[in-house]
This record gives sequence, C-alpha cells and structure tokens, in this order.
Amino acid sequence: MNLFRPDVQRIAGYMPGEQPQATGWTKLNTNENPYPPSPMVIEAIQAAASRGLNVYPDPLATRFREAAAALFDVGPDWILPANGSDENLTILMRSFVDPGELVAYPYPSYILYETLADLQGANHERIPLNTDWSWNPDRTREIVDRAKLVFVPNPNSPSANRWPNSELARLVPPEGVLVLDEAYEDFCDQPHRAGILQSDDGDRIVITRTLSKSYSLAGVRFGFAIAHPDFIAGMRRVKDSYNCNTLSIAAAIAAIEDQEWMLRNTRRIRATRTRLVEQMRVLGFHVVDSQANFVWATHSDGGHEGIYAALKQKRILVRYLKFPDADSGGKPLDGLRVTIGTDDEIDRFLACLSKLV
Amino acid sequence: MNLFRPDVQRIAGYMPGEQPQATGWTKLNTNENPYPPSPMVIEAIQAAASRGLNVYPDPLATRFREAAAALFDVGPDWILPANGSDENLTILMRSFVDPGELVAYPYPSYILYETLADLQGANHERIPLNTDWSWNPDRTREIVDRAKLVFVPNPNSPSANRWPNSELARLVPPEGVLVLDEAYEDFCDQPHRAGILQSDDGDRIVITRTLSKSYSLAGVRFGFAIAHPDFIAGMRRVKDSYNCNTLSIAAAIAAIEDQEWMLRNTRRIRATRTRLVEQMRVLGFHVVDSQANFVWATHSDGGHEGIYAALKQKRILVRYLKFPDADSGGKPLDGLRVTIGTDDEIDRFLACLSKLV
Repeated sequence: MNLFRPDVQRIAGYMPGEQPQATGWTKLNTNENPYPPSPMVIEAIQAAASRGLNVYPDPLATRFREAAAALFDVGPDWILPANGSDENLTILMRSFVDPGELVAYPYPSYILYETLADLQGANHERIPLNTDWSWNPDRTREIVDRAKLVFVPNPNSPSANRWPNSELARLVPPEGVLVLDEAYEDFCDQPHRAGILQSDDGDRIVITRTLSKSYSLAGVRFGFAIAHPDFIAGMRRVKDSYNCNTLSIAAAIAAIEDQEWMLRNTRRIRATRTRLVEQMRVLGFHVVDSQANFVWATHSDGGHEGIYAALKQKRILVRYLKFPDADSGGKPLDGLRVTIGTDDEIDRFLACLSKLV
Repeated sequence: MNLFRPDVQRIAGYMPGEQPQATGWTKLNTNENPYPPSPMVIEAIQAAASRGLNVYPDPLATRFREAAAALFDVGPDWILPANGSDENLTILMRSFVDPGELVAYPYPSYILYETLADLQGANHERIPLNTDWSWNPDRTREIVDRAKLVFVPNPNSPSANRWPNSELARLVPPEGVLVLDEAYEDFCDQPHRAGILQSDDGDRIVITRTLSKSYSLAGVRFGFAIAHPDFIAGMRRVKDSYNCNTLSIAAAIAAIEDQEWMLRNTRRIRATRTRLVEQMRVLGFHVVDSQANFVWATHSDGGHEGIYAALKQKRILVRYLKFPDADSGGKPLDGLRVTIGTDDEIDRFLACLSKLV
C-alpha cells in the first residue's frame, strides 16, 4: 500500500549539485559566492544568538522588509521574505496554480520548476529557446497565452545570458502571472531595481531575489519576493507563519544594509568572469556572454562529461548538465556550467582544463 | 481579475499569537520556554557564523539526524529535519493528501491543521472530543476510517491533556497516516521515545517534534519528523532541497546533544506548572491536568475575554481562545491558555489575576 500522492510517487525529486562536506574541494558547481559575507552580517548573527532565541521571530520580518523596500524604492508591503528563494517559488506555485492549470518555463533552464509543478499536480510545458538562447516569438506566445504561471530565470541558468525588459514584458500571461527569478541579477553589468513592476502588466509580475549568491549567504537561506501588495498579501496566507528565523532575519538585514560589501564582491566576480570567458575561448570552448556568476561552456569536440569527471579527480567540482530534449546540431545539448570562483580557484581550474582539451 | 487559487481566496489564513516586538511584556501566550537555550547552542551558532555561510548547508542535515536517531534509538533514515515543525506539517499534507481526500483532527485542538487542509484543497472533518477531552469511540471510528491523514497533537492544545498510546493506536486510518504532533511531549511526566512506531500499525504513524518549546529555540525554527524510512524518503522529495540553514542545523545539533540542559528546564517548568494549577484552582478556575508547558483554564463565571483584556492592560499576554462549535454547557467553549513562564512571571500573573476574579 503506497500512501503517497501519485504525483509524489511519480517525481524523481530535484537533485541539487554535489555538496561534499569534506574540505579541500574547489567548488565551482553550485554558483556560490567565493567571498565571505560582510563582517556586519557575522556580528549581527552573533548578537542575535545571544538574546531571545527562546521566543518566536517576527513573523513578518518587518525590519528586513523596510530595508529591502528602501533599496527597491517600493513600500514594505511589496516585499515577502522567505526561507530561501526556493520557498518563494513553492509559495507562488501553491498560491496561483490549481491541479490541471498550466505552468510554463523556458528550456533549457532551471529544472526545479518542473519538479514544483509536478508536486502541485499542475500541467507543465517547456518554452523551447532557440540555440542562441533567444525566444521563438510565435511558439512562445502560443504557450504563454495558455499559462497560469510562467517562470523565467533572468539571467538564465545554465546559459548565464540575460533578456532585456522589452522581451520579458511579452512573457506575462494574459490571465496569469510572470515570475522573474532574479537570483543572479546583482551580477549583471547594470542590475535593475524592480522598475518592471511599474510597467503596464507589472501588477502581474513577481520578482524573486535571494541573498544566497551576491550577498554570500547560501548557508543562511534567505530570499524575498517583490510584487504588488495585493499579491504579497495573498502569498502571505500560503506561507508558514514563522518561515524565517531570528538568525537569518538578522543576517539579512545586515547584509542588505551593507551594499558596499556586496557591490565590491560582485565587481571582483565580474572581473574574474571576463578573464575566465576569454581564457576558455582561447582553449576552444564556446562560452555564452555571461551576466551571472557562472558561465556556460561547450566544446565542439564534446567530451563534456569526461572533462567533468577528470576535473573531479583533481577535486575540482563543476556542473555537468545535459538537456536531452534540446537540440544541439543533431544531438542533445550538454555542457559545463562553471561558477566564478576566486582568481586562485579559476587559475587552478584553467590549469587543469588546459591539460584536458 | 483575482488570480489566486479559489482555496487561497477562501481561507482567512492562520493567525498566530501576538508577538509584540517591544520589550516589557510578560509573554504567556505562545508557549515559549522562558529559559534560554543551552550555552552550547549559542557557541555552536557563533562558530558556524564565522565560517562558510557563503556555501549551501548540508541538504540532509546528516549530523543532526545522527544525533536525533541516537536519542530515539532508530536509524538516521528515520529522521526528517525541517524549518520548524510547521514545515513538516505542510510536507505531510503535500505528501499524502490529494484534493478531495479527507483530513481529520480532534476539535477543539490546534486550528492550523484546518488552514493547511484548505490550502491543499482537501476535505476536512473535525473529530469532536467529549467535554472532558476524551474520545467518543464510535464517532471517532467513523471519521478515522475514511481519513487519509489524521493529525493529533499529543499533548493536545489548548487542553494540555495527553492521551495514552493505547488510545492513539485506534486513530491510525486503515488506509492512511496518523500524525502525532508531539510539540509538547518533553513536558510530560514520562515522555516516550517513539516506541509507538514499533507497534502493529507503526509504519503508518509519523511523529513530529520541535526544538521550539522544550529546547528553548522558537527563534531558530527547527523541527523533525520520526517515521519509517519509506515515509521519510518520500517526504524528502516534497521538501525544498535546502530547507534548514547552516545556523539552525548547528544550533539543533548542540541543543539535542545537551539533554541535561533541556531536562533541567522542563523539570523547572513542571514544578511551576504544579503551583500554577493549584493556585488557579484556589481562585475558582477549572484547570485541566496539564502534561504540557501551558494550562487550559475556564471559570464558571465566564468573562474570559475580559480577563484576557485586563491582563493585557497590565502588559501580561495570555491566549484567549474561543471554539464556536464546541459545546460547553449550552454555550460555545472559550477560555484562557496560559503558558508556564518563570516563577516570577507566574507570580506576577497570579497577583493580577487574583484582583480580577
């Protein structure tokens, strides 16, 4: 007697990147920031730890919402904090999608959307991207018109390209919601500040942000959504009452208030990114112009899985990704997604890589 | 155009107890532990804060599972850590209940189960308890037989009574799952150690525990489920990959490894509880024998809401609860749920209360 919902029985479950708990690895596989968080974050956590953990946190994380609202030039009622951006994606699915309704997302892209749709008993369709990561207007329109929820990571993963607002505006379903998953937006050359929410269909757009990447806080699990207050109020009914903890809220406030620290680190990562892209191209890789803290690289000789394995032998982890349903010159697309580490880490990676191709 | 799911539009959302962010309140309303967590917890958080927050946490919280497994004499694959017990309740609902299936729970009890069932589009039915908080065998059987999921808080809230294992065994649905929500179990005179999972129907029982209450960590949001490994494996597919953060995992390991600290605090709370129950009875209240860190008190003169309001004037918060569908001598049941604070807090409460009745 299997008592689980048939939807749960069917799914394989999302498989996150490898997280070796031992030290000594060069981890370029899960898009973590190689630099530590602001010292003010550490101080804030240590202060919060020594007072009041026996009582519940502020269920609305009011002080964080005020700080984030100031940064994005909106009111605090436009902000919904969550236990990582993952939780906001789940909240969005449970807020807007009934079983049988359509969830759409580009392909190749972040595969978690598919797992979340399956869990909700939703239908889902992939919007196939062109091989140069651009949208096919007719095909896209046809799918978006029927969708209740469209998820678009921007910059996209694994490709690291970024689409302009003018193209995103066309992805808002006429009777549904567009979610812009902006986990990597702070690594863009010109990050925006949620201005798209003021556009014509802006009241049907939700932006999700995370502190995991640009603020170096993957370990703290803190993300937030930005959207019209009517959306935020409805989503709040779906979340657990106390979804963020006292320590993560304290960390998040300190992090977002130290913009200088975040901006310095994203600048360094962009500089390393330029160097990595250039040198991988010298080694014969095709590398998509990146607006994120990772690059997507393919080699005309193929052998990507072998390169991944050989690097792992040397305790360098990158992400080997395969998209069986994406065409790449007659065979399925696969390639390597490489996180931008420190300059030392990238030098180590390039030195190993140059012996493999 | 309201784009939210009809289920979400319908629910009011769960209303947690008041959480004034200002100081100066005597908080006896949300069953927090008045004593601080173990100093080893603070140390563990501070150590974790200063290393590696830029990387993701262990998605399986392996070291915590090992520590909890040792305590409950099961294997680590019997344990599922979560972002507070609330998250495990949500995971259970999403794992086992399809829209239209039946969720049942005693009434009066923890009202959150109803909100979670509504969110999942499930049917729900209350199992009406007798006025002395015992089960009505025939009525109970009839409902349980049709349920996919039965939630039973044990000890119960608001009543603080505890049902013996022999009665719980009858609450396992023939084709469903019994969830024993044991948030308050450590405050019992003789807490058990999950032995019920070894009973005949034990492979269809899930126990949920939290560190919020007995371990003084409401601010940290950490709970865990204990169940047969097949259940845990399925529930793991439903959870977010990184549902617990580096800091809360570190805190949880340290907390569960310092049993002596927890046991000392629960002993103190039980001693204060004895005194509170006796003195409230002297003041004319009917107080249910408590096996939790709170008491449920009613007065034959009624006026519970007025007492709540008068106490609040004095900056003492207790919980006024009303159960419109529970009969109490011809009118709806209402009463006061009072958390066991420190001896000083309880003295302050009793001094105020004695002037009000």
